[in-house]
Amino acid sequence: MAKQEDIFKNVVSHAKEYGFIFPSSEVYDGLSAVYDYAQNGVELKKNIREYWWKSMVQMNENIVGLDAAILMHPTTWKASGHVDAFNDPLIDNKDSKKRYRADVLVEEFAEKINQKAQKEIEKARARFGDAFNEEEFVTTNARVVEYLSKYKEILSRLAKGMTDDLQDVKALIEELEIADPETGSRNWTDVKQFNLMFGTKLGASADSAMDLYLRPETAQGIFVNFLNVQKSGRMKVPFGIAQTGKAFRNEIVARQFIFRMREFEQMEMQFFVRPGEEMKWYHHWKETRLKWHLSLGLGKENYRFHDHEKLAHYANAAADIEFNFPFGFKELEGIHSRTDFDLKAHEQFSGKKLQYFDPELNENYVPYVVETSVGLDRMFLAVFATSLKEETLEDGSTRTVLKLPSVLAPTKAAILPLVKKDGLPDIARTIIEDLKWDFTVAYDEKDAVGRRYRRQDALGTPFCITVDHQTIEDQTVTIRHRDTMKQDRVKISELKDIIENEVSTKNWLMKM
Amino acid sequence: MAKQEDIFKNVVSHAKEYGFIFPSSEVYDGLSAVYDYAQNGVELKKNIREYWWKSMVQMNENIVGLDAAILMHPTTWKASGHVDAFNDPLIDNKDSKKRYRADVLVEEFAEKINQKAQKEIEKARARFGDAFNEEEFVTTNARVVEYLSKYKEILSRLAKGMTDDLQDVKALIEELEIADPETGSRNWTDVKQFNLMFGTKLGASADSAMDLYLRPETAQGIFVNFLNVQKSGRMKVPFGIAQTGKAFRNEIVARQFIFRMREFEQMEMQFFVRPGEEMKWYHHWKETRLKWHLSLGLGKENYRFHDHEKLAHYANAAADIEFNFPFGFKELEGIHSRTDFDLKAHEQFSGKKLQYFDPELNENYVPYVVETSVGLDRMFLAVFATSLKEETLEDGSTRTVLKLPSVLAPTKAAILPLVKKDGLPDIARTIIEDLKWDFTVAYDEKDAVGRRYRRQDALGTPFCITVDHQTIEDQTVTIRHRDTMKQDRVKISELKDIIENEVSTKNWLMKM
Repeated sequence: MAKQEDIFKNVVSHAKEYGFIFPSSEVYDGLSAVYDYAQNGVELKKNIREYWWKSMVQMNENIVGLDAAILMHPTTWKASGHVDAFNDPLIDNKDSKKRYRADVLVEEFAEKINQKAQKEIEKARARFGDAFNEEEFVTTNARVVEYLSKYKEILSRLAKGMTDDLQDVKALIEELEIADPETGSRNWTDVKQFNLMFGTKLGASADSAMDLYLRPETAQGIFVNFLNVQKSGRMKVPFGIAQTGKAFRNEIVARQFIFRMREFEQMEMQFFVRPGEEMKWYHHWKETRLKWHLSLGLGKENYRFHDHEKLAHYANAAADIEFNFPFGFKELEGIHSRTDFDLKAHEQFSGKKLQYFDPELNENYVPYVVETSVGLDRMFLAVFATSLKEETLEDGSTRTVLKLPSVLAPTKAAILPLVKKDGLPDIARTIIEDLKWDFTVAYDEKDAVGRRYRRQDALGTPFCITVDHQTIEDQTVTIRHRDTMKQDRVKISELKDIIENEVSTKNWLMKM
Repeated sequence: MAKQEDIFKNVVSHAKEYGFIFPSSEVYDGLSAVYDYAQNGVELKKNIREYWWKSMVQMNENIVGLDAAILMHPTTWKASGHVDAFNDPLIDNKDSKKRYRADVLVEEFAEKINQKAQKEIEKARARFGDAFNEEEFVTTNARVVEYLSKYKEILSRLAKGMTDDLQDVKALIEELEIADPETGSRNWTDVKQFNLMFGTKLGASADSAMDLYLRPETAQGIFVNFLNVQKSGRMKVPFGIAQTGKAFRNEIVARQFIFRMREFEQMEMQFFVRPGEEMKWYHHWKETRLKWHLSLGLGKENYRFHDHEKLAHYANAAADIEFNFPFGFKELEGIHSRTDFDLKAHEQFSGKKLQYFDPELNENYVPYVVETSVGLDRMFLAVFATSLKEETLEDGSTRTVLKLPSVLAPTKAAILPLVKKDGLPDIARTIIEDLKWDFTVAYDEKDAVGRRYRRQDALGTPFCITVDHQTIEDQTVTIRHRDTMKQDRVKISELKDIIENEVSTKNWLMKM
């Protein structure tokens, strides 16, 4: 079996070669942790966004959409806590001038000690075989006990330092003699907080220039518009506001391709409920969102819940839906019970009431909020990486096939004239003229038909429709299915229904 | 007839009241020249974007999409000329500390003189009636001749100053004794260039922080990806790359609602052609884009071409499609023949070849580019403002109706139970369950049905479907048409086809 790193490398190179994702501004050697969606990527991304939007907004009478601007009044980010608390603790090495996240330095150091303990455990397991009792071993083997207690102690002192005093983290780095991983120098500055928001300035006048931020999350655009939407839309609690859009974070350590980018897109829904009913809705949305993911058929085993033990300051319950990415299980979506934290904060900072009058209770209140927040780029990566397969065929040859959920595939069908003559291209184009109103379709006449099949497999196209000489006789074509490679002979007039049945959003969402 | 300003005020207030557009961060008293799209606005905007995308990408075999990031490598903007030349000339009043665009100050001054001439002309026209010969009058009336020659002289000196030396503009302001419009002070600073790009910084390290810009146009994202798309997509010249996305300009004078915003969205297509064939394609796209606009049925009289006499440094031909906005004819879309300026500039600044090998000519060249660029927000304003009508009905009452092209309407049908009992709401919801997979639909049971019709009229919903007691008997409903207010009695099973026939993109695009 291929190693995880190899799989991941393959994902990145396939994405580039087949026009899904390019490094941003590649002609200028790229911009770190920023990517562009290419001609096939833009369609896949659009389809994921639309699949989410339909299931959230179009299907639900009590959820409406919103498209708030990226630039917001700066007080928004005072109220949300981002100005004061959306920080990473950074430390500079004075000799190398390299900058690191202080907590990551310590965590990586601790992890090395933990690895030593794990190595001892593995060695013992190999020695004792079935008789090995891990629980007993880790409490009695002196060396392992020492490693593990050291590991835990470091992490606990780190956690304390991060909340209480960053200089404790500095002291810890010095005490552990942690060196610059690149140069070995131990000559460190103090630890300083660095805000992750991108700043900019609005307006030209020296007097009136305003410090703005690129929004680090889309959620606040919903909160500040809550009352405008509720009133103009005559919404009744419980109701939701859904939004997709760009957000920006000046990450120090951005990596793993499109998993953690500096510019990324969120798909968020904030659900406004009666205070006291938030846990019911929290559980409802946890289950509903998981069902949505499962409807895409990427495999139940690739998802798991991770309930947060340590909660953010605004939440009274939180869970992630984690996905099995090529680099392990990581957060794909977050479901958070955010209480009335955000709306109350905006009330306080704006001096305006953000209350809802509940006609059934005959009472005013600030609603509680349950949030579902999924990264569109992470969804893209989950779908793309899981769909990319290397298959060995019966004849021993291999094929690369992108088994995308057909509802999300960039191109639904490729129309291929068997040869470039005898009027076959004209028939192919007539078919395209008919299908293109309803589906994204492609025409391909270059190379032998087998190579064209492989090319469409690599692009994730669910159907190849081949026009041959028999087509002239009886108005039939062959339709080849991407996953099974099975070919059927069907009438041209049947094509629309066959494709529709396979790719329609309705048929996919009904699996929820 | 209502005055233009009143119409425009009405547009802005209707957009807010009915959940189309809110001022951004309104709870914090808004952010100047930034707006949020509300629950109905987001759907209208999505539908316009999709109507454009389908007609450009899905319908055309040789046009593909792209979604480049907002953040790009900063050298991009050196190459494009934006760092050096994307400026407004600003002047400060030393007493009031107010900042103005120097050219706008002069233009407004000149316009006042022009207005004086126009007033004389109107007075003479009123006096002489049919016998009035304007052409003769403006060349013989001493006062008018003086005004007009002064007007032209100022504009020509301004144009010269803007290209040659900004200090000539300053001299002109002093010579004309132009005063601060707010305070009357004539105590001016020198004129300085102010760059319109929003700046930000990438990365935390003092050493490695990089000055970035929020892209001021989406076009460059296409140019830097040109070769990646061409190669991975095996595209043959002529071919196009289409993109929709946000752009940002730090406008000094931003106004007219969503017409000129600091954050806005573009829908652009760059068409790559053989050098020498650009004029053929320029004319092709001028006609094709106008046809696209006309397909929406907003009235042929509301569009006109404006061919540029003065061309930008990158263009060898350029025209605007102007639309009759509530404040007059203004640019809605630009069609530009950009030559090979951009690709050549990126070649020069990146040191990489951006050439295409033309297999038919057996030759390498840098393609020429024809651009079509439409503002999505301007399209929204054009559609919204033109569709908003105040109608007097036969009985003398009035109704407000938003006669949106039905393909763009946020909600396609509202399902209304005549009364809230006798099982009618259940039947209405069954109809919704059936229709919602294919259309955005709404349920409304509040108030008398006549009021509900008016509400849906104001939201631009093409169909109201009313469930009454007869429905229980024979499975029929009434379907009311927004524009004619005509009601038909039809079977529930016929609804899907009736709606589809009216709102389908295919039927609308076929009008092109």
